[in-house]
Order: sequence, then structure tokens, then C-alpha cells
Amino acid sequence: MVATPPIITLLTDFGESDGYVGVMKGVILGIAPGVKLVDISHQVGPQAVQQAASLLSGVYTYFPPHTVHLVVVDPGVGGTRRPIALETPRGRFVAPDNGVLAYIQQQEPDSIAVVLENQRYWRPALSHTFHGRDIFSPVAAHLANGVALREFGPACDDLVKPPIPAIEIEPGLVRGEVLRIDHFGNALTNIARLRWVDEQAIEFCPIDPDLADDTRLFDASSARVMFGWHTLNGIHQSYSQVSVGQALALVGSGAELEISVNQSSAQSKLALQVGDSVTLHMHALSDGG
Amino acid sequence: MVATPPIITLLTDFGESDGYVGVMKGVILGIAPGVKLVDISHQVGPQAVQQAASLLSGVYTYFPPHTVHLVVVDPGVGGTRRPIALETPRGRFVAPDNGVLAYIQQQEPDSIAVVLENQRYWRPALSHTFHGRDIFSPVAAHLANGVALREFGPACDDLVKPPIPAIEIEPGLVRGEVLRIDHFGNALTNIARLRWVDEQAIEFCPIDPDLADDTRLFDASSARVMFGWHTLNGIHQSYSQVSVGQALALVGSGAELEISVNQSSAQSKLALQVGDSVTLHMHALSDGG
Amino acid sequence: MVATPPIITLLTDFGESDGYVGVMKGVILGIAPGVKLVDISHQVGPQAVQQAASLLSGVYTYFPPHTVHLVVVDPGVGGTRRPIALETPRGRFVAPDNGVLAYIQQQEPDSIAVVLENQRYWRPALSHTFHGRDIFSPVAAHLANGVALREFGPACDDLVKPPIPAIEIEPGLVRGEVLRIDHFGNALTNIARLRWVDEQAIEFCPIDPDLADDTRLFDASSARVMFGWHTLNGIHQSYSQVSVGQALALVGSGAELEISVNQSSAQSKLALQVGDSVTLHMHALSDGG
Repeated sequence: MVATPPIITLLTDFGESDGYVGVMKGVILGIAPGVKLVDISHQVGPQAVQQAASLLSGVYTYFPPHTVHLVVVDPGVGGTRRPIALETPRGRFVAPDNGVLAYIQQQEPDSIAVVLENQRYWRPALSHTFHGRDIFSPVAAHLANGVALREFGPACDDLVKPPIPAIEIEPGLVRGEVLRIDHFGNALTNIARLRWVDEQAIEFCPIDPDLADDTRLFDASSARVMFGWHTLNGIHQSYSQVSVGQALALVGSGAELEISVNQSSAQSKLALQVGDSVTLHMHALSDGG
Repeated sequence: MVATPPIITLLTDFGESDGYVGVMKGVILGIAPGVKLVDISHQVGPQAVQQAASLLSGVYTYFPPHTVHLVVVDPGVGGTRRPIALETPRGRFVAPDNGVLAYIQQQEPDSIAVVLENQRYWRPALSHTFHGRDIFSPVAAHLANGVALREFGPACDDLVKPPIPAIEIEPGLVRGEVLRIDHFGNALTNIARLRWVDEQAIEFCPIDPDLADDTRLFDASSARVMFGWHTLNGIHQSYSQVSVGQALALVGSGAELEISVNQSSAQSKLALQVGDSVTLHMHALSDGG
Repeated sequence: MVATPPIITLLTDFGESDGYVGVMKGVILGIAPGVKLVDISHQVGPQAVQQAASLLSGVYTYFPPHTVHLVVVDPGVGGTRRPIALETPRGRFVAPDNGVLAYIQQQEPDSIAVVLENQRYWRPALSHTFHGRDIFSPVAAHLANGVALREFGPACDDLVKPPIPAIEIEPGLVRGEVLRIDHFGNALTNIARLRWVDEQAIEFCPIDPDLADDTRLFDASSARVMFGWHTLNGIHQSYSQVSVGQALALVGSGAELEISVNQSSAQSKLALQVGDSVTLHMHALSDGG
């Protein structure tokens, strides 16, 4: 019987032109020769911790739980920020302690974090400028090889707070903002997690545990999404429910409120930018739908 | 003895910045842990079905025949377009039915297409916006695992027609157009398939089966390629046969008529664009060359 | 026991939009089905041989020594330049003979080069425009499969000279230039190889063997780096030793003198370009530090 090969994903702000990602993969394959390497993105904005957190959060649940997710967006490299690892029932994570893993921890209450202090799992010569190569890659490779989390260092429960702006909930409305613009020009907001219950009803279960009691069911067709001077009526199921070139709000593939233009770019057509305020007005439904 | 690992290639218009491709790979590796994943391109223009068809057509024959090619350029996601799979002697294909696979089918007459109706091979929760994740990726993974084509749904023989504009053939000339501009600024046309028979003679075997009888042999040095105000004399074998900065016509690596500028960009130097008309004038040779 | 899978890295100027890299991977996997494929970069400037050499030189030492590095930046394709392979104790290399592998050979004196003349290891139909597909990929795959270097063709010791501009060394100073700008806007120079010996002392061991006697130890804090109208005092260990937005000189992750701006771009803030002169002034320390 052949064992399932381990998987390591990579998410960085290194770009793809300089070989920095290649160097990390070389280090990993030297330690874990059988590992499957999967690029998530290397086009996170330089030092854009919020974007990395949002992106990772929409991706990791689709990977097998034995996967190790390596995230190196590291404005503080060489400074005092700690290198950490996080183990959850749905994946393991290695990253600098800059808020990205705290955001995952919010979604995975049953998790353990450790500080990567055990230099036995680092490269022998530590640089001051490339811990992705010297600490995070070898640690990810050893984790993938089966080394237990606690081998890497002591547990910690004071991770740096997540960089994702909080939503505000009031009766009948949720106030959030645009978190990311994707490749198609769709605007992805922090108003998440939304889920279609049937053709008419959407369930809202915010990630932040402090807001978790506000789980509610609302009517899709009478909801309104407001931003700038725009109001979109109703939340749609798919782009093709409106004409080509028309704007719509929908539940995005990552379960967030998304603002789109069918077969075009919401960013350019609606002048949307990261940080823009978005309000969702909704009418509650009883639990029966 | 170790079995040859299955291969899945990915061709999308998703870009590489958002993690959409990573999500698809996570889904695939959860079903087919030993598969080799190969990116063809994720930079197809948004919803550019013609570009995807042309690109795929130039790539698939170089992969082993057991490869599964996953193509998600899907302007109609969530609408009525069908998800399909195609099996040919030189590769298997999974895609929305938007013309891309019909173009492959033209080149592989000995092929079978099915509609992907069997929800057993989909992800349990189907979204309306990301069938690449919910239908195409799991189907590709199950195909790679060895599930037979007919398991996925009923056969169909009415695929949506290919998006590639037809060439026109008249005595002594072929009228086509620019289909794609590549990374180097080379203009690739739909005048294909060309093949050097010897130092002097080129064979022309158009893909469209209706034109297949027009297979002919022509003289390379006396051929002329005309577009806009330009005329290029002769078809060359390699870029370095002309001076740096000089324009030339040649048989591209994908067997198509290509217009280039040695060590520069035909797109910028000759103001070529996708859709520009190109005419190839040629003098027939007898079959003996 | 499972054997360690072979690794092939790919470094080209092909971009990632056209499927050219995918074609090479298809050819490789047809010959060496179990190989691990790792992309180094496909964003080398068109025909930018110097950039490829500099990039490869900073990457290959991080891969296991059984790795095959495939480098296709090939302005002379179809002309008279020779296809070659190089075997060193720290990796094997396949590329056109345009100076890139001679640069590696400088760093690996214990190496052997051969001309790839044995057509048995090429694809059967050789094009004039895509030797990456027809010669270099199949040769790399056969090398990864364990075919001995000498099978591919005769040894040669007259490789085309490296494209990296030489540094000039005078008492107390080294004159070099900017070789590459990375994704973050950091300027990487040809003043290499620098290595921190302790908190205060840097060792300088130039790559060019003619300069190897000039190995010297100098004081980091009193060194000065001059370019254009700028002077930077001292060489720092990490970006975070200066304020956000401030310029600094440091030893880059590839052991070269690097000019950076903390959390910003040296290229745009300091108007640095490839080819700009950079001078390092330093005060020698005795060997004891």
C-alpha cells in the first residue's frame, strides 16, 4: 500500500520572478522529498497581511486535513516578531506571528499554537532577511514528515490579533467593507459567512465568535446591498441571473458577500476599492424558512 | 513496480493571485492524492473561449495520453451550459460545453463526449459560481483515478461549436487571421497545420475536416504572407535566419503560421492585433517535393 | 523503501500565459513520469541571459545535488549556438551555451560540460524554434532518469563566457553595478559573495577565481555604499534595523550587496536601475575580527 503523500501549500508576497519561492521549494524537497507542493498565491501585495489572511481563510478548508500551509508575508523579518505554527483539525499552518494565523484560529477553536524556538528544525545558517527559507520552509517540511507540533517549541496563546476589520451588526443590517478585489474585478467583503439554505433563504454565521449568537436567516430577494451611491436589490445565486454588464450582489464562492458585474469588472464599473464601506440590509425569516 | 502517476493539467482564466486555482488543486488532491498537477496557463483573458481553445490545442498532444486536461474558462457558470468530458486517444478533457472541447473533437475524430450528470462525482454542496471547484475538479480527479467515462453521464454528440474562426481557401491562397499574441509578441494565426517536409517544401493540412482534402505541398521561399500594408517574402525556418529586429513569417512551434520579429515583438513593431486578417499566398509543389 | 524522486527545475523567459512551459512539462513527464517539477521563474526578461545567470546562481545551491536545472533563455534558437549540459557536485544543468552555465562553472570548479549531440535523447521531430521542447526537456528528463552525462555527447571546455559584468577591486573599495531589481524593488548587485562572520565583521569572497586571493574581512559599521548622489553608511543585518521608508545597504539573501528601502521599493525611492554603478568602501579587519 502506498501512503498518501504529504502536501505543503505556499502563500507569499514574493512574486514569481526572482526565484525566492524556488529556493523555499528546494529547501523543502531536501527535507521532505515526497511532498506535493501547491502554490496558493505569490502575488499578495508586499507585506499585505490582511489580504493574506482573507485569501488563506477561503482556501485551506478545501485541502485534506494533513496539509501544511506555509504563509510568508513577513514585514517584520529580522525584527522581534515570533515564528509560529498552528495545528487545527482542518490543517496545519506555519507563518510569522502577524495576525494571519490568529484569524485562522478564530475559525478553528480547537487548535494549538506553538512558537518555533527549536533551532534543530531550522537551516543551520540563519539569515536576517529570509526566514521563509531558513525557518518556515524547513519547519513545514519537518511537520509534513510527521514531526509532532510540540517538538518545534512551547505552546502560546497570545497570538497577534487578526488584521481583518470587524463587521458591525445592528438589527436588520450588517456594516462591513471591501476586503479584496479579485482577478475578475469582483469585490469580496468581510460580510461572511453566508450560506444558501434554499432558493429563498440565506443563513448568516459571522466568523468572529463574539458575534456568533447573531446567526440569522434572512430573505434573499428583499435584501439590499448599499455602497457609495449604489443600491443593489436582492442577493442573486449566480452571475448569469443578470444581463451581461449588469451589477449584482451574490454569495461568493468563499461564502462572503460579493459585489460583481456579470462578465465584467465591478472594480472598474462601480469604482470599488479595498476599504470601501458596504452595508447589507436584510429581513429576518423564521427558522423554518 | 511503481505505477505511472496520473496527470491533471489546468487551464483557466482565474489568474494566479486569488487562490481559486489552489482551491481546485486541494479538491483534486483530496480525491486523487498521487496525481501530478501541471499548470498550462491561468492567464487566459477573462471568458476568452477562443484563446483557451487555441492554447489547449497546441499543448495537449505533448502530454501522455492518460493525462486529464481540465479547462475552466466559463462565462456561463450557473446558467444552462452543460458540463462535459471528452475522451480521445491522445488525452481526456473536462470543461464547460462552450466550444473548447468541440475544437479538440475536430482534431480527434475518434472521440466520445459525455454530459456530466452523475452528481455522485460532484462535491456535495454545489455553488452557483464556482463549478471549477464543485464539478470539474472532482470529475477530473475521479477520471484520473480510473473511473470510466460513461460513469459520469450520458454520451452526447451535439457539443457547442468551436469558437475558432474558419480559414478560407482559394486556389493559391489561404485567408486567416491572428488568433493569439504570445508573451514574446509573436502573432499566431489560425492558418495551421503546417509542417516542413524538407528544406524547401511545406505541407498544409488544415484542421477543419471539411477542408482536409485541400492538403497540399507548397514552396517555402516563394510564398508570401500579407497583412495590413506589410508583405513578408518567404517562410523561414527559424528566427535567427533574419537580422535582429527584422520581421519574418515562419512555421510556429504549434504548427501554425506565425509572424515574428527576431528578438523583438511583432505585436508592437508591426502593430498586429488579435483578429487582424492574414493571407498566405503559395505556389504548389508536386508531391515529390 | 521508496527511492527519492528526481527533481527538475525550470527557468525560462517564456512567461506563464502561452502554454510553452506546459508543453515542456508534458514532454518531461512522458519520459520521467515520477519527476518533481519546480518552477524557478518564467519571467526572466526576453532573452535576458545576464538576469537568468544571476537568478540561477542564487537558487541552485538550495536544491538537493541530484536535481537537474533546466534553463531556457535562448535568443539564438535555431542558429549555431550549442546545446550543453553541465554536471557539478551541487547539481546538474541543461541549457543553450550562452554564458549561463559558464557562470555556474566558475562557482563549481569541479564540473564537466558536454555538448548535447546524441539525437537519441532528443524528440524525433526537431523544430527550429523551440529547442526547449525538442532538445532541452527530453535531455533533462533522461538525465533525471539516470542516463550518464557522457551519453549525451562529447565533453567540451570552451563554454561561451558568462554575461555577468566583472567587479573591480582596489585597495579599500570594490566597484560593481546593479544586476537585478527584485519584486520588492530591492537592487541586487554583482558585489558578492558577502558573509557575516560575527556581529561586526563581513567576509568578502568574490566568485571570479581571478579575484579569489582578495578574500578579505571588513568592518560592517564603517563601510560605505555609494551610488548616484547617495551614500549609505554601514551595512545592516536586516531591513527592520532602520525605520520604515529609510534606505539601507545589507547582505542580501543570496550573499550579494543589496540596496533596499525598508517596507518600500529602492528602485522607485532611489531611482535605481539595472546597470547603475555601485561602490563599496570598506576598512579591513585583521583575521581575528
